[in-house]
Amino acid sequence: MTANDTSGLTLYELAGADPELRFSPFCWKVRMALVHKGLEVEHVPVRFAEKETIAFSGQRLVPVLRDGEQVVTDSWRIALHLEERFPDRPSLFSDPATIPLTQFVNAWTDSVLPYLLRVILLDVYNSIHESDREYFRSSREKRFGMRLEAFVADKDANLAHFQKALNPLRTILTDRDFVAGDAPAYADYCAFSMFMWARGVSQTELLPPDDPIFAWREHLLNAFDGFARKAPRRR
Amino acid sequence: MTANDTSGLTLYELAGADPELRFSPFCWKVRMALVHKGLEVEHVPVRFAEKETIAFSGQRLVPVLRDGEQVVTDSWRIALHLEERFPDRPSLFSDPATIPLTQFVNAWTDSVLPYLLRVILLDVYNSIHESDREYFRSSREKRFGMRLEAFVADKDANLAHFQKALNPLRTILTDRDFVAGDAPAYADYCAFSMFMWARGVSQTELLPPDDPIFAWREHLLNAFDGFARKAPRRR
Repeated sequence: MTANDTSGLTLYELAGADPELRFSPFCWKVRMALVHKGLEVEHVPVRFAEKETIAFSGQRLVPVLRDGEQVVTDSWRIALHLEERFPDRPSLFSDPATIPLTQFVNAWTDSVLPYLLRVILLDVYNSIHESDREYFRSSREKRFGMRLEAFVADKDANLAHFQKALNPLRTILTDRDFVAGDAPAYADYCAFSMFMWARGVSQTELLPPDDPIFAWREHLLNAFDGFARKAPRRR
Repeated sequence: MTANDTSGLTLYELAGADPELRFSPFCWKVRMALVHKGLEVEHVPVRFAEKETIAFSGQRLVPVLRDGEQVVTDSWRIALHLEERFPDRPSLFSDPATIPLTQFVNAWTDSVLPYLLRVILLDVYNSIHESDREYFRSSREKRFGMRLEAFVADKDANLAHFQKALNPLRTILTDRDFVAGDAPAYADYCAFSMFMWARGVSQTELLPPDDPIFAWREHLLNAFDGFARKAPRRR
């Protein structure tokens, strides 16, 4: 990895009580994109209650990438930015023609996150900083119309719903090693990000070992010298 | 269109009480693929109770494509077969690199069909031939564990669930005209097939006019000289 041409790249990411713990799936998409491109960046942890840290971006959501004078928000736009800025690094897309369909996989991933949330919500709650918890609980309980504990109460059913929501991913991984084809690309990292969200905060096993998604997840945990596998998890 | 090099292509499709009524979404994927490639084929209607018509395929599901001595089943494999067999015709894929991700969209479509079924099931029932109805009702009521009428009773909620399940499609059509990018390709036809399923049998409007999916559907209804728009609907 060369840090030379990446100087000035700073990634603002959601952090937990442990500032080394990163669990936001949106941030994980970008983390995988950066390691895929061999780019080193400065990481700035941001807690829920510290949104003023990213006020310069004109909005309140992480991840935020600062690239010199440029500020890029939204993980999908960050991925496109990295691709355009570093065209000589390994591409995030097996071909430029795959960009629209990769965005579909990205949007699909976001549509599956609510199913996973019903499995790991209390783990997320227990991972965030104490000072974030009151805000987190009250905002989520208002959104869901119930106590956090009730939201995740039917664990088996919720896990089954999540596993069923993965069917499109399962179908294509039955036929090939990666979502993008023979080698992983950004479409893979999008889908993988949800598993890194869960892995950071929860001990719940989401997949049986004979699920084709399990083997794919192992591949990606081991990729880039075990980059994802080595990431800190909640103790 | 030239029929010369397509002689010998026969498509076996699900038919309704009206043999001109074709509503299977799996068959619609193939119908759109054929018109995209400018291929004329012989169409053979198959009712639920006439599965012996496709016994030669070694299985019981339509569509089945007979191409000379070759028999190809499963809409996805039929699409790949057409692409390989007619490489000089317009491609079903904006680039070969998009094939894996197109298969993802195909699998995603299949995962959304159950949501749509909860909206149009009685319309499907009313579209099939009288001789098919007893089999259809009993097999479906056994599968769903309830009367067909109960399955679709909460029409507003079921329609809302379907519309929500379309979020990944909606997201990318906010940014571009077609799923595959600037021009429609097989990924578009996969997602479009579910709307042709509904259109064939039902008068229910599935989308508000300001939904980005609405405009995309209009484009595809009008494509190929209005091929899809002209298709017979249940009277």
